[in-house]
Formats: sequence, structure tokens, C-alpha cells
Amino acid sequence: MSIPNRGWVLASRPDGPVQESNFRLVEADVPPLEEGQVLARVHYLSLDPYMRNRMGTAKSYAPAQALDQVMVGRTIGSVLESRDPGYRPGEIVLGAGGWQLFHVADGPGLSKVDTRVLPEPVFLGAVGMPGVTAWYGLLKIGRPRSGETVVVSAASGAVGSVVGQLAKLNGCRAVGIAGGSPKCQHVVEKLGFDACIDYKSTTFLDAFQAATPSGIDVLFENVGGWVLEAALDRMNPFGRIVVCGLIAGYNGEQIPLRNVRAILVNRLAVQGFIVTDHLDQWSEAIGELGTLVAQGRVKHHETIAEGLENAPRAFIGLLRGENLGKQLVKLA
Amino acid sequence: MSIPNRGWVLASRPDGPVQESNFRLVEADVPPLEEGQVLARVHYLSLDPYMRNRMGTAKSYAPAQALDQVMVGRTIGSVLESRDPGYRPGEIVLGAGGWQLFHVADGPGLSKVDTRVLPEPVFLGAVGMPGVTAWYGLLKIGRPRSGETVVVSAASGAVGSVVGQLAKLNGCRAVGIAGGSPKCQHVVEKLGFDACIDYKSTTFLDAFQAATPSGIDVLFENVGGWVLEAALDRMNPFGRIVVCGLIAGYNGEQIPLRNVRAILVNRLAVQGFIVTDHLDQWSEAIGELGTLVAQGRVKHHETIAEGLENAPRAFIGLLRGENLGKQLVKLA
Repeated sequence: MSIPNRGWVLASRPDGPVQESNFRLVEADVPPLEEGQVLARVHYLSLDPYMRNRMGTAKSYAPAQALDQVMVGRTIGSVLESRDPGYRPGEIVLGAGGWQLFHVADGPGLSKVDTRVLPEPVFLGAVGMPGVTAWYGLLKIGRPRSGETVVVSAASGAVGSVVGQLAKLNGCRAVGIAGGSPKCQHVVEKLGFDACIDYKSTTFLDAFQAATPSGIDVLFENVGGWVLEAALDRMNPFGRIVVCGLIAGYNGEQIPLRNVRAILVNRLAVQGFIVTDHLDQWSEAIGELGTLVAQGRVKHHETIAEGLENAPRAFIGLLRGENLGKQLVKLA
Repeated sequence: MSIPNRGWVLASRPDGPVQESNFRLVEADVPPLEEGQVLARVHYLSLDPYMRNRMGTAKSYAPAQALDQVMVGRTIGSVLESRDPGYRPGEIVLGAGGWQLFHVADGPGLSKVDTRVLPEPVFLGAVGMPGVTAWYGLLKIGRPRSGETVVVSAASGAVGSVVGQLAKLNGCRAVGIAGGSPKCQHVVEKLGFDACIDYKSTTFLDAFQAATPSGIDVLFENVGGWVLEAALDRMNPFGRIVVCGLIAGYNGEQIPLRNVRAILVNRLAVQGFIVTDHLDQWSEAIGELGTLVAQGRVKHHETIAEGLENAPRAFIGLLRGENLGKQLVKLA
């Protein structure tokens, strides 16, 4: 019995902003399973900013997405058929299924999750890769001390929202930066940050200064560009800058940083990191985050697009900052 | 008996490059010593790039040099008179005497040095603040491992020359960047670096690439600007950038850094530092450097201007890169 699969492949590399025409929907039957393989139906696909980098050919930490191949992406879904004795039909599994309805994986490429307490989408967000990114970057690189001020850009996003909440749980003042009043309102009222500044507002610099009266000790940077420059100007001596993302430059443009001198004058530590370099820390991170989310001490929010056909549009919306919280696509 | 003193005060803050007219020579009698004070005659005055920052009012790690006050600076000299029982006339002392012939200091502000093995100028260079800067920055922040490539800018200067030699002693490939063939020749032939690239050469980028065939693991940055950008482009994953100085921006101009993305893509650690934050490490550093210099395993070189009247001119020359090795002024 053949199972028809559908998925999005990379049709062309973007020249500037990503277009829907950079993707092409393809159909093919799911191949028969080989020994040790598992077939899963994807319930949710995670869309993440790193995918933009993979679409280009610029030097990066991961190989480029191959043309005419199904777009990479983390997924959660259910086992349909298994030739790995470790998996049984019906089990819920995390994997790198990509932008498609079904995927075949080797057993070790999957991991089982317990969805009795936490809903499936959370395992792609606050208790998944974005949550671990926040946990590792803030706690292991930023090392905030109680009473310090932590600033995070893209504060309403999947990573930023967890960064600020972990900062609060560690006794810090948490200040977010986000685009637009609704996001800022969400960050303060729903996530409990002390303040959130709208970078699209004409009074950004004054509001940012007022929100960081004691300067900044830890900056968790997801964006780059002039917002990074504004934060750099407010760093305290011996401050830490965790460079997690520079989405402002994802379309290939160079974003010069003017006030580099602050690194020297304030003896700052600036550290770029990629969470997949630190797989040995994941189980500890996932354990802690799972508990915090289950207890309601870390809140989560997802923006969920419906249907495979909407994946490219949802991804473009993510790059434009149209989502709130974790951007997912519901496939089944 | 009164002793006539002469010294340079800051007459005006530079607007752009430093001019001799920014300084004014003043004369005054040395005041009588109070209990606990020591009078020293300055033999050598150290001129250092950090003084340029102090002349301005931009936020920095140290207070600005006050107008109409004697320019700050480290000195080595001999005790003439002492009202501190710990010091006797004739002893050689390091201190912060400034740009003047005589200085009065509290005893604890001085330290005695043993000049039986090493000559006086060395204590202001390779076995002084610049040497400790190189030692701390390279070994404690850069943490080079045997076989790695270390690049240092301003390689023929007081700090850079020690950085490269310590890198070699730690089993690294040492590549310098300096301005002009004579400096590069000195760095390779006298100091033993593996290579030195002339940033004034039109073939700089090709030569730099050829000199760093395995990329760069540790960058010790003294300059900033486009040379820093070129080095950033060649950093290996998990590389370390020690930000010791950014002399390219010392005249107040902003030097934008275009390729900030490299910090993320290569998970670089960028750390600004000021050696005086780490006084607890000085005695260890001075001990090691003193031994290495005495054994001839770390070479030193000084450019020595003669006479107090030439201090401003020598300082301007230092900022223009006209010196080789440590820039001093001989006062007595």
C-alpha cells in the first residue's frame, strides 16, 4: 500500500527577502521502510529563523539547504509504522522531519516525548530547541546574577520569551525589545517582563533608557543592527553579550556595528553560540524547562499556521516578525 | 633648598589628531616632602596609546586627564629623598610620575625594581605594563593551544611584540600585522614570528591569507578598523578575539565593523580587557616575563626620545606608528 507524501523543496535561493516562489511543492510516495527505519506522520512543523541562512550559500555553521530537496525542519508527530524495535505505532516522536506530511527516519534520529502533561507544540518551543537556546545562552553564557538587568531582543519570539522569564526566575530585571505595541503588551502582561520597548516607536531611545536605569548587564541578542548599537551604548562594565541571532542581516545585507569601542571601554564579553554545539546540556535543559512550563512558571505561546500549503507564507511572516511566540505549522 | 621641576600639562583637548599645541610646558619648585612621601627623579617616561583616550572626554575606563595638570604616565627613576622608611635615596623605583622631571609620591604608590640583571627601560616595556598586558590577554583570555595560529596587530609595538613571542613559546604559529617593511622585518627576524604582514601593502589581503593557511584561532587586537575586519573573516570556529586596543579610533572617529556576523557563524568569543583590572596577576606575570627576558627568550626593543622637551613629539610619533617597540622618553 503506497502512501502519497507532499512536501516543500527549495526551488531557488533568495536574492533579498524570501519569496514564496523560492519554494516548490512536490509529491511522491513514501518509500518502503528499511530495517531500523520508522515512518512518522508530522503533526507540527517548527519554523525557525536559522532556516533563512540555510537557504543561502554564505558561510555558516551548518551546510546550506540543498536545492530540490525537502526543506529541513524539526517536527513532532506520531509513528505510523516501525522497523526499529524501540518504536511502536502511535508513539509521539520528535525528529527532523522537514517541511512534509510524512517522514522516514532512522530510529536514533527520533526521540520520544511524553505528551500527557505538556501539549505537543511545546516540545518545538519552550521545551524544545528554542527553549534550550534561551536556557543555555542566558544561564551558561550570560550568567546573570540576581539584581542585574537582562535585555533581550525579539522578546516575544520563541527564544526571547523564555530568556526574559528565566531572567526573572533568576532575580533579574528583564527588559524586552519587540516590534509593536501588541507584542510589547504580551511580553509584559502575559510573560511578566518588567518592561518591553517597541523598537518601531519614535521614542524608542528615551523609553529604552528609562527602562534600563541601571544600564545593562546581560544582553541576549537575536536581531543586530541599530537596536544592538543602542544596547551596546548602555552596557555596564564587565557586561556579557550573548549573540544568538542576527536576523537583521539575514537577507544578506551587512549591518555595520559603529560603537565597537564599547567592547574595550567596558571590558565586555561577546560570545556567539549555536545551541547544537552543546547537545550534552540538552537533557538537563529540557528537564528544567519541562518542569517550569508544567508548573506554569514559564509561559508559552504559539502562532500556528494551518496546513502544509501555508508553510512558505508562515515562514515569510516569521522573518517579517508577524508571529507571536513560536511559529508552527499544523499538518495533521 | 628648592628643586626646580618642569613638566608637560594638558593645555587643550585634541579635536582630531593630537598636536604639540595640546600640551604646555610648566615650571614649578618641587614642594617639600610630607611624612610618608618620596621624591624621585624620573629617568624614563613611558608613552602609551591609552594616553590618547585620557586626553578626550569620551566615556572610558579611566577618568579623563585633567586640563592644566601634569600628563599622567608610568615612570622609572631613582629616589632622591624619602620620608617613607621603606625607601632610601638611590633606590630605583617604578611609579606614576607623569611627564615631568621630578615627582613626589606616597611610598605605596611606588615599587622597587632590581636593575642588576635587566636594564631600567625594560621595566616600562616587556617586563612592565605592556608585557603584563600581552601575558594576561594572550594566556588568560586568548588561551592559545599548541599548534594554533595567533595573529596580533601592532606586532612591533610594546604589547604586540611580546604577544607573538609568548605565542611562539606556547607552540603556536605567530603572525604579526604591522605598518611597513622595516617593522615587519624586525618582527620576523629579531622577534622570531613566523610571518608579519604589512598592512600598508597593496597585497595585504593575499599575503595575510597566505600567512594564515589554517585560519586564525586567537586574534590579539590592538588596532581595529579594516584590519580587524580582514582578520575576522579568517577566524576559525570557536576562535577567541582579545580586544586590547582600538587605536584606529583614538581620534574620536567611529570605525564601523561590517562583518559582525562572523561572531555568530563561528561562535567567537570576543573579550575586551584592561590590564589594570587584573592587578592580582601582575606579580606572576612580571616574574615570568622577567625570567624570559633575562634568559633572552623574549626579546625587547625600545625607541627612546631624548629629553623632556621632546615628549609631545614622541607621543605624536607613537600615535602615528613611527616607533619600533616600546616608546620611552629619557629624562635623566
